[in-house]
Amino acid sequence: MKILLVNPNLTAAITAMMAEVARSAASPGTEIVPITGEFGAQVIGSRAESAIAQHGIMDLVAKHHQGCDAVVLGVSLDTALFALREVLAIPVVGLTEAGLLSACMTASRFGLITLGGRMIPVYQEMIRAYGLESRAVAVGAIENSPLQATTDPDAVRKSVAAACLKMVEEERVESIVLAGAALAGFSTSLRETCPVPLIDCMACALPMAEMLARLRLRKPVVGSLAHPGERVVKGVSPELAALFKTS
Amino acid sequence: MKILLVNPNLTAAITAMMAEVARSAASPGTEIVPITGEFGAQVIGSRAESAIAQHGIMDLVAKHHQGCDAVVLGVSLDTALFALREVLAIPVVGLTEAGLLSACMTASRFGLITLGGRMIPVYQEMIRAYGLESRAVAVGAIENSPLQATTDPDAVRKSVAAACLKMVEEERVESIVLAGAALAGFSTSLRETCPVPLIDCMACALPMAEMLARLRLRKPVVGSLAHPGERVVKGVSPELAALFKTS
Amino acid sequence: MKILLVNPNLTAAITAMMAEVARSAASPGTEIVPITGEFGAQVIGSRAESAIAQHGIMDLVAKHHQGCDAVVLGVSLDTALFALREVLAIPVVGLTEAGLLSACMTASRFGLITLGGRMIPVYQEMIRAYGLESRAVAVGAIENSPLQATTDPDAVRKSVAAACLKMVEEERVESIVLAGAALAGFSTSLRETCPVPLIDCMACALPMAEMLARLRLRKPVVGSLAHPGERVVKGVSPELAALFKTS
Amino acid sequence: MKILLVNPNLTAAITAMMAEVARSAASPGTEIVPITGEFGAQVIGSRAESAIAQHGIMDLVAKHHQGCDAVVLGVSLDTALFALREVLAIPVVGLTEAGLLSACMTASRFGLITLGGRMIPVYQEMIRAYGLESRAVAVGAIENSPLQATTDPDAVRKSVAAACLKMVEEERVESIVLAGAALAGFSTSLRETCPVPLIDCMACALPMAEMLARLRLRKPVVGSLAHPGERVVKGVSPELAALFKTS
Amino acid sequence: MKILLVNPNLTAAITAMMAEVARSAASPGTEIVPITGEFGAQVIGSRAESAIAQHGIMDLVAKHHQGCDAVVLGVSLDTALFALREVLAIPVVGLTEAGLLSACMTASRFGLITLGGRMIPVYQEMIRAYGLESRAVAVGAIENSPLQATTDPDAVRKSVAAACLKMVEEERVESIVLAGAALAGFSTSLRETCPVPLIDCMACALPMAEMLARLRLRKPVVGSLAHPGERVVKGVSPELAALFKTS
Amino acid sequence: MKILLVNPNLTAAITAMMAEVARSAASPGTEIVPITGEFGAQVIGSRAESAIAQHGIMDLVAKHHQGCDAVVLGVSLDTALFALREVLAIPVVGLTEAGLLSACMTASRFGLITLGGRMIPVYQEMIRAYGLESRAVAVGAIENSPLQATTDPDAVRKSVAAACLKMVEEERVESIVLAGAALAGFSTSLRETCPVPLIDCMACALPMAEMLARLRLRKPVVGSLAHPGERVVKGVSPELAALFKTS
Repeated sequence: MKILLVNPNLTAAITAMMAEVARSAASPGTEIVPITGEFGAQVIGSRAESAIAQHGIMDLVAKHHQGCDAVVLGVSLDTALFALREVLAIPVVGLTEAGLLSACMTASRFGLITLGGRMIPVYQEMIRAYGLESRAVAVGAIENSPLQATTDPDAVRKSVAAACLKMVEEERVESIVLAGAALAGFSTSLRETCPVPLIDCMACALPMAEMLARLRLRKPVVGSLAHPGERVVKGVSPELAALFKTS
Repeated sequence: MKILLVNPNLTAAITAMMAEVARSAASPGTEIVPITGEFGAQVIGSRAESAIAQHGIMDLVAKHHQGCDAVVLGVSLDTALFALREVLAIPVVGLTEAGLLSACMTASRFGLITLGGRMIPVYQEMIRAYGLESRAVAVGAIENSPLQATTDPDAVRKSVAAACLKMVEEERVESIVLAGAALAGFSTSLRETCPVPLIDCMACALPMAEMLARLRLRKPVVGSLAHPGERVVKGVSPELAALFKTS
Repeated sequence: MKILLVNPNLTAAITAMMAEVARSAASPGTEIVPITGEFGAQVIGSRAESAIAQHGIMDLVAKHHQGCDAVVLGVSLDTALFALREVLAIPVVGLTEAGLLSACMTASRFGLITLGGRMIPVYQEMIRAYGLESRAVAVGAIENSPLQATTDPDAVRKSVAAACLKMVEEERVESIVLAGAALAGFSTSLRETCPVPLIDCMACALPMAEMLARLRLRKPVVGSLAHPGERVVKGVSPELAALFKTS
Repeated sequence: MKILLVNPNLTAAITAMMAEVARSAASPGTEIVPITGEFGAQVIGSRAESAIAQHGIMDLVAKHHQGCDAVVLGVSLDTALFALREVLAIPVVGLTEAGLLSACMTASRFGLITLGGRMIPVYQEMIRAYGLESRAVAVGAIENSPLQATTDPDAVRKSVAAACLKMVEEERVESIVLAGAALAGFSTSLRETCPVPLIDCMACALPMAEMLARLRLRKPVVGSLAHPGERVVKGVSPELAALFKTS
Repeated sequence: MKILLVNPNLTAAITAMMAEVARSAASPGTEIVPITGEFGAQVIGSRAESAIAQHGIMDLVAKHHQGCDAVVLGVSLDTALFALREVLAIPVVGLTEAGLLSACMTASRFGLITLGGRMIPVYQEMIRAYGLESRAVAVGAIENSPLQATTDPDAVRKSVAAACLKMVEEERVESIVLAGAALAGFSTSLRETCPVPLIDCMACALPMAEMLARLRLRKPVVGSLAHPGERVVKGVSPELAALFKTS
Repeated sequence: MKILLVNPNLTAAITAMMAEVARSAASPGTEIVPITGEFGAQVIGSRAESAIAQHGIMDLVAKHHQGCDAVVLGVSLDTALFALREVLAIPVVGLTEAGLLSACMTASRFGLITLGGRMIPVYQEMIRAYGLESRAVAVGAIENSPLQATTDPDAVRKSVAAACLKMVEEERVESIVLAGAALAGFSTSLRETCPVPLIDCMACALPMAEMLARLRLRKPVVGSLAHPGERVVKGVSPELAALFKTS
């Protein structure tokens, strides 16, 4: 099986880190195909950068999905997730979506911790969009930057540990999702520090993509996730325009 | 006052039609500045085309917002609405957002009618994102294309009238929002046909944009709608990249 | 355009203050017709006083709405709002309703601050009645009386500023509605003190009433907001009884 | 024990019918004190008439509650329920509130049937105000008038039976609340006709009022249901004004 | 009237204490039939023990319900409540269910206090199952054991008093349900200490069971609460197996 | 990896059928350990039978979980799911839980189809317990018995196909979960008949259990899913009592 791992931002170091976690989470025989964004934000940290990445991801996936069995979006805002589900015939899994759904199997009420307090409302919007607001009841943040996760992982680890303990005590969450592509892989080293399970989104997204690929679900032919039909789209890459062709 | 009216799709005829409705809804002295998309879908009719338009709208607004007092998004999916609210210091109003909020003042429970059944779930997602699912309780669609609204308005008018009557009878809605940029202006001629008020989104969005501009609310300096700060964004128009500069 | 501004409580000083804010928020050419309650509470500060005001407002509006194009309820509990919408053919806008709907265009999650902690649950009930509980996520209060807003505005201003800062820090709200007729006009002087936008309800209610009047929406002829038909109502003023006549 | 049964509308025949059902539902030794409205609507059938009754009920209860152990509001819109809870030291129970809460013990999902389709949205608003929208999932109406319940009970009985069967089949409700003071007592004769339990609101409200009276719960001294304190209220009956005195 | 009071755990002292409160809450002439669990947990304090009690309660009720007019479940998790409603023809009332529904008549927003912080999420699940999450907005716990309620009631009383005060101050609840069979009867001695009403679940459950028994509601013949029909159940007591017979 | 597959009902034929689907869904190297109920219902089809199975499942798992890496509950009501999560240190996955969570990755709004209309409210309760009521918006049933799925699979297949088409047309669901252990394996043969994806719960539960086992999440040491600590449980099998020991 081949799984396309899309990092829409321009930072190859993060792609590499995610690919490593993805490989260790994948079944034997699954090949990870990591790709990095070609235009847009160096590191996505706002709705505005994510808006540009909507185009960027569509473009990247259009160019690279051929021959793949599933797509994993390596961006914690799950940018363009349902848009890709319309035009592709293979499954697409969002990083945070996978973490949140997995957390449902570990706790009645859980929390989510990300990087940067300004993103808290954005994750609250996602949780509500997924209909999980009665399960994912707390969202917190550490004030480290995504790049620090590669340059000073110990500092990030300490911040995450403190934020987790605080959330368990104050909000009584019974597991915690670590959101943010840059936190992929951190749950392992924090396993003994935090009194409740820590969910690594990438470690969930990979097996879920494999599962969906194996289910061989049919592409819907009615409704909002059927292919939209032949559409005229101009001024974009030929590969992206081709996603809107029907023959 | 100058209000930027952004039509992210490539169809100038729809821009013109919207601009006309916008002008008739604006206060004396308000200038409407209509702009049409430069790349992306001819007519947006899916989440996938809207994903590309997220970039398109950011780009258009970056190029044209100077000197304007507010922005009205002339696209019924309210594409990039909160993204623009992050990077701009002037108010931004979404077409459907304005229609839904106005409908709240006309009915306890209301409905929404759009073009194309496949978009029904997408509007249901928007309504939920706005937190209005207990007010906007029904979403329906006519099966005419947006272009028909300009080429065969009588046929569209008949379809809308029938859909409204059906929704009033079956769902007991007490007013109806006509969503879809292409339906701008249709409410007037249907006024006597439908037993409950019909809400024209553009006729609401313009006065709401004027109101917000006059309120002169401060730009937030904390939280997810504060400017994200200096960000590195590559491979986009210089004007768009400049939105992410702080000096 | 003529807009009836109804203050159901018996305090003419508050009517005057509201009328001044209303005039400055209105379009050129709009005439504000302010009226003050004839019976009931000096200052409404409980559900019980608001219950009496339900009758008081119906009576006042029955006597004064002739020749007006819209009604703005100058009472922060939006008393009798939907009741008036049944019997009148012109639009009616509630003060807090207008503030809450406007706040939706300024923030993903916002708060509301009013006068008197005992009213907090009452505002929570209103927010839920409007279906906005996922948007208006925090309600707070200052412990000043409404009359202090006219007699010692500086003290009130300080209290509001402190309450806003606390709410932004603790609840991460991204804008704040100032509810309570007595707070009309305070947002301007607090503009620089509070790090997020402050919403003045009257400054929103006026333009919204103008907008609805200009939309010339039809009076519904079916449903709960159609006129209830000829009804026998005794022991009230002839003007109020006349609202229930159909010929 | 003495229970005040308040019928805010002016129709003594309905008071008499309700009092009879109340007496048969009460414990031995409970005295029912029925009172009829002095001003307002002959029969309340709209939010506008209910708004006037807010004052009417406050006035009636102020005049007659002395010596009573609890109040039952004999009006299906539960008019002024929480307002009375502020100013009285004895329990107050709403007719529809009691029926809805009792229905929770008979079904996972239940429905409500009332008189007059135009009232359906009003009951939906009440259900939501009580937070019971996930339990009370269907609201229907028969098109008979309240007065017909006394003049042509057989016709009303047939309409209710048909509406119940339809609701059980189409909405899968597992019990049904008969709302509307005029339907008090109808559940008995329909017991065998309807395949699920029928809830008579008065038959629930009486025992619930008795229960609350026996619990001798303390009057809250903080919060929105504590007495509002000494308030100036003018132009109302001395008994009503006295409810706002504290000494 | 005879009411079966089921204590599924094995602690007869708790049965006795509950029976005493039940008797003082019952009408004259009502006989309480208390029974204690035969297998399972000494004291139920987890979902796992409650799972075993599901069988235990079904078994106990099967053996003892003959001749009774209603069942009250003397276990604060309301274990097997809807399961019993399927197979019995007499009403069944849950302890916490009764307390929560009664609290709805005493406050707009209320809280619940139980024994043992680990049970907080379990009560939150129950509140949501009952659809009352917008009314019962706070859940707290004291860290005393259920047995302490009989061996050291003063210590428990102090803990409850402190927890109530904290909840009123921090969460602004306007009444508080004391959940946990072991807290039956504590509300009386705390009446003056807590500034808002305290709800004793047993004192509510008894009159509610009496009320439902007097209503003589029909057993539903359709839906999930109709008897499931003849079912093969093996390896259980003959009395329990007999509950699944239809002739 | 070894996965315990628990069928709490007494029908070995259904265990065998489920085990077959489980084996085909498992990764190479995963061993399925199927066990069948020892007491309780032949086929669970009501809350009452599920209540008995709560004990049955606890008992079965206590006896057989040693040496297993995860548990899959082969019962569509997910009986005892969170109870097992308290006392076990290995992951437990519910059949319907797995299907519902997987469906979230295939559709914005989806439906669920089961066997027997009387179970519809029970699945609605489960969906709400999982917090998925805004995603799983329709529940339907076919009127075949679980045993027919093995004795007359063609008839069952036809019923399912018809129910799916009806649900897609009337409710606009975009994928459908086939719930009910007896429907395991039916999705494959219906793949081309239904216009939207069909979700086989067992095919999802197996890979999800494998995923959770590989994540090696820590057992929580605080909260409601920590082990409840040493508890006295009598009259049950020694293996079950041992689950409540801590040393």
